[in-house]
Order: sequence, then C-alpha cells, then structure tokens
Amino acid sequence: MRLFGRYYRSIWVDEQDAETVCVIDQRHLPYQLVVETLRTAQDAAAAIRDMHVRGAGLIGATAAYGVYLAVCRTRTDPGEAAKSAGRMLAATRPTAVNLTWAADRVLAAVRAAGNPADARQAAFLEAGRIAEEDAASCQAIGRFGADILAGISRMADRPINILTHCNAGSLAFVDYGTATAPIYEAHRRGIRLHVYVDETRPLNQGSKLTAFELGQNGVPHTIVTDNAGGHLMQHGLVDAVLVGSDRTTRTGDVANKIGTYLKALAAHAHHVPFYVALPTSSIDWQLADGVREIPIETRSEHEVLSITGQTADGRLETVRLAPQDSKAANYGFDVTPARLVTALITEKGVCEASETGLRPFRPDRAR
Amino acid sequence: MRLFGRYYRSIWVDEQDAETVCVIDQRHLPYQLVVETLRTAQDAAAAIRDMHVRGAGLIGATAAYGVYLAVCRTRTDPGEAAKSAGRMLAATRPTAVNLTWAADRVLAAVRAAGNPADARQAAFLEAGRIAEEDAASCQAIGRFGADILAGISRMADRPINILTHCNAGSLAFVDYGTATAPIYEAHRRGIRLHVYVDETRPLNQGSKLTAFELGQNGVPHTIVTDNAGGHLMQHGLVDAVLVGSDRTTRTGDVANKIGTYLKALAAHAHHVPFYVALPTSSIDWQLADGVREIPIETRSEHEVLSITGQTADGRLETVRLAPQDSKAANYGFDVTPARLVTALITEKGVCEASETGLRPFRPDRAR
Repeated sequence: MRLFGRYYRSIWVDEQDAETVCVIDQRHLPYQLVVETLRTAQDAAAAIRDMHVRGAGLIGATAAYGVYLAVCRTRTDPGEAAKSAGRMLAATRPTAVNLTWAADRVLAAVRAAGNPADARQAAFLEAGRIAEEDAASCQAIGRFGADILAGISRMADRPINILTHCNAGSLAFVDYGTATAPIYEAHRRGIRLHVYVDETRPLNQGSKLTAFELGQNGVPHTIVTDNAGGHLMQHGLVDAVLVGSDRTTRTGDVANKIGTYLKALAAHAHHVPFYVALPTSSIDWQLADGVREIPIETRSEHEVLSITGQTADGRLETVRLAPQDSKAANYGFDVTPARLVTALITEKGVCEASETGLRPFRPDRAR
Repeated sequence: MRLFGRYYRSIWVDEQDAETVCVIDQRHLPYQLVVETLRTAQDAAAAIRDMHVRGAGLIGATAAYGVYLAVCRTRTDPGEAAKSAGRMLAATRPTAVNLTWAADRVLAAVRAAGNPADARQAAFLEAGRIAEEDAASCQAIGRFGADILAGISRMADRPINILTHCNAGSLAFVDYGTATAPIYEAHRRGIRLHVYVDETRPLNQGSKLTAFELGQNGVPHTIVTDNAGGHLMQHGLVDAVLVGSDRTTRTGDVANKIGTYLKALAAHAHHVPFYVALPTSSIDWQLADGVREIPIETRSEHEVLSITGQTADGRLETVRLAPQDSKAANYGFDVTPARLVTALITEKGVCEASETGLRPFRPDRAR
C-alpha cells in the first residue's frame, strides 16, 4: 500500500538489521504514521495485545515474527525459546485463530532445524513465508473480486458505488487486505468506483483506517455513519456491499464486525449484491450453523462509552459520550447467515456461500 | 421528568419573572445540567438554531415562547413584533414543521387581542397551551403504548427488552417524550423492563440524552452501538422496538433519525414488533410515498468526522475521527416503509400503519 507517497507493508524486516521487525503503530492512524520497531517477542506480544497491530493476517504475521525474534534473542535452546514465545503470543488475543497457527508454524520450522544458527534462519524464512503467503492470498482475492466489480461496472456506465464496513484492508493484513483488495485491483485496472466507508463504531476502524488507506491510495471514498447504509441502498446509491470475515462456517455463514448483519439485511431487501472476501484459512470447517455456534466476543464497555480522536491542537484525547452511571454492552461481531451472502470471494476463487459452494476449497479434498 | 432528584420540564416560565423563559441547554448533557434563561425572541432563536434545544415538541414550544418574549419586549405594535419574531424563528431550523405552526398560533392569538396588555397575556396563554398540549399528547401516547408493553410483559414472564433509537424522549418534547412515554408509563405501572439505547451516531442523542433521562428516572438501560441491534434481535434479546417519528405519511411511512430503517429491517426479519410513537400533528396528510416524497436533510459532514464529549478532567472537547482529507456524507433521517411498522402509537390511539389505519385520525374527518 502507498502511505504518504511511499510503498509500505504493514509489517517488514528492518533493512539495516535483520533482527529488528517494523510495524505501523495503528493507534496513531490516521493522524500520524508511527513506525514501531520490535526487537523481542515481548515487543511483538505487546504490539498485538495493545492493538498497535490488529487484523487477522497482520496478527498472524506479527506472531510469526515474534517467535523469530525470540529465537534471535535466546542464548539457550531455540526450540524452547520458540515454544515459550508462542505460548505468550497466543495469550495476547485469545480469539485470533491465526495467531496460534502462525506461531506453531515457526516453532515447527525451528524444531526441524539442526542447530541454533539454522534455527534462526529457519524461523526467519518461515515468518517471511507466512507474511508473503498472506499478501499473495489477498492479491488473489483482489483479482477474483475485481472481475466481479468489472462486471458491475460494465452494466453501470458510471462510477460504481461500493459500501464497506470496518477495515478488512491492507492494514489488517500484510498488504492489499481482503474486502479492499478487489477495490484496489479494480482501481488499478481503471474501473471507475467510489467507496462508502462505514465509520464502524465503536472503534471506528472505518473512518480511521479504511478511509485513510483508501485516501492514501487515491481511491474516491466518503465516510458515512453505520446508520446510513439502509438509506443509501433504498435510494439506489450502492451497487455492491463488500466486507471481510473473521470466521466463516463450512455452510457459508459469516462472522464479521458487529453491524455487518444489518447491512446484509438492507442489501437483501434492495437486491444489492453482498460479497464477503476472505482467505480460505479463515473458514472453520467444523461449524455448520454460524448464529448458534460462533461465539461472539464481548469487549469492554469503555469502547462504547468513550472514543479517542485528535484535538484541534493535534493531541490524541479520549472523551466520554455517555452519562457516568450508564452501562454499555459491546458485542464485537455478528453473524450474517449464508442466505444473505451473494458470493464468497477467496484466494482460490469465487463461490456460492453454501456447503456445496465451499466444498472444492476444503483442505481435506486437496490432499 | 426527574433530573438530579427534581421535577423538570424541558421548558418553563421562570417562577420569579413571568417574562423570562427557562430551558435546559442540552449541549451540556449528560455531563452537566445547565439552565439557560431566554429573555428575548433572539435568545429563543439562538437556542433553537444552535441546538441548545432540539426535538419537534420542544422546538415548537420554544418558538411559541419566543414570540411571547418578542411581544413582552416590544414598545410598538405587538402584532408586528410577533410577526417578525415568528419569521426570524422559522428561519432557524427550516425543516422543523412545528416551529412555524407554533409561532403562527401565538401570532394569531396576539392579533385577536384588543390592546398591548391583552396581547401579552394572549401570547403567554397560547404559548402555555402549546406546551401543555405537547406534554398531554405525549402522556396519552404513554398510556396507549404502555398497554401494548403490558401485553408483551404478560407473555414474557421476565423483564422485557425494548430497543430504541435516538432521543424521542422527554428532552425532545416538553415532557414524557413519544418513544419514551410508554416506557416511563410502563415503568410507573411496575412493568419490569430494560431498554437497549442505540447511541445514535453522529450526534449520539441516544447515549447522551436518552440514556441520561432513562437513568435519571430509574429505568434500567444499556447503551449499545447502532451496529448492535441486528445481533440483539437475532438472539432474541429484543421484545419490541419503539422509536419516534419526525414525519409520517398518511399511508404510514415513517421518517425518523438515520438508522431507524436498518432496525426496522432487522425487527421484520426476526418477527420483533416495531412500534412508532408520534403525535398526530406530525402526520403529513399530503404525502403517500415516504421514500419518494419526504426530503431527507443533509447536514454538515463535521458531525460525522468529529465528535464532542467530556475529557477525564471535565472539559467538553471535540475530537476528529477521520483523516484530514476524507469527506463524509451526513443524512439526517431515513424512511421506514409502513410494511415494516407493526403499529403507530398516537395520542388518539393505536392504529395500523396504513391509510385505512390512520383515516380516523385525519383532522378533516374531525370537523
């Protein structure tokens, strides 16, 4: 992604020092681009836990590099260092499935290595592969999704309007994002488009991150409140809804940021296609009924009762939006049933949101 | 309504000085109860324009008292003073229908009076009648609506959960509110209930005003983001949605705060009853198709891009939530088609949201 005229990924190895990993501290976005250097697994764990970095793909890559940094810093057994770092990293965001998966992959590479120097090299390469695979997978989603947008564009004969919710963007992955990848690829192909960005309360990943990365990459966009989508679709102002997914059942039910479901209902009511972009690694093949089976994380009420933004004189400030004695409930995600999803866009191709549609992507079939 | 243990209306004549009108400056809520005294029509106009007061009923009453204050202060012709004050007041919030209607009523009373002293008395009484009628109408809505909630409560055998959006509350009217009136009346009758309060971006009238007045009046409530309602209804956590209306067509289409429509879609999908409480004065008998015919006010993008709240040290501070170069669209209202409305609750009774249902309430039939 381009940020302030330079090309960035959301995580990279320092050019001067291969034992230092850099991330963008996203808590300062969109106000300031702060690059944070991670020197230890503890640094990586803190960056994940305190949400300097967030998003499934980026959390996975950060965990992978966290294990690599543990191996770099240890003076004893690299395998033991990798294992205990992996355990510490896994505890930072218990619901992030990618986290354990990525740490385990690096651990396995370390264990397979013959000696400490090989172990360090193996960890470096495996973490790099995880990051590369993430970016490549997003890029493939972008190509499949852009083909769909191209089709809509041909029918429209005007810039097409896409609505997105939350940040399933470059900043949530190593690059390109999932929901944003088709947008970037379509933009690159010269397809005229405009994006309505839901602000995405309570943490405003839409207005703070998605609007930021779209703007930095020259994609025309307009921020709207989460309340606006129904009105927009009712008046024909949205040609497609395009969102990401945190977890998808084998039947095509989609858990994504709270509020996604309301947009899916509105899209359905107005015959607006509703697309979900996701890497197949986020499909939970065990689950058949998303509404019943996917546990919905409840987060701190303070995220709803207060908000952080930038004051006129450039400080970050948190302000309270509610009476002192009022309580809030803060559901992190909701589930959109497959019947409301027009299609799933994955790195392996586009499919119907159903068990039949997803079957070709099952890993056990590929073996 | 009770606020900090005392009984208040949202507007009242000063007990010591009948030529001073008091309002609660709602910009300071929920943090501080600031009473503002209005001495002139200009004061009233500023209070309306700068949104110290808001809400259809309260705006109407403030305009009425504004005309009264103009008559109090004039040394020349009371009719001229009332007329020019009415014109000035009408210009403060062009879309508020009640405003012109209330100012015109006081003007007519002034013109019917014989001399300046009578004119002042006539304006005082007419403004008072407008305020009383507003409160009485809300109280009647409360009784009809509470009967409905009582029915739901009898079926539930546990505290019932009501979801509301925005502030159609005591603070938006002279007292009781519309959507909140059935809640207050049901609470008074001992019906066990709990209210989910949508925060209502961009101005957060839900978290700032509705939560405040419910809390002050002892009504159990929980603030949620506007994104949460779909999830709540999907999981059976809402027994009824209860909202107000800014304008209702003769066919029962309802224009209310942006985001209402998304809740109506979710209620429909989950067979949750969706009630709209409104005074019949807000029905526009000219309109048959709300989606096509009701103009939707577009407000300043700054309401979306920034938000005002209270800092830890008690100051009101406005913070920006978006990149400096991103734009926002800010639609103030949306339209919920009658087919999604279970019933309308008015001061004259409960009816189906349809031309047939509303027909008995037509003013031309009453004549």
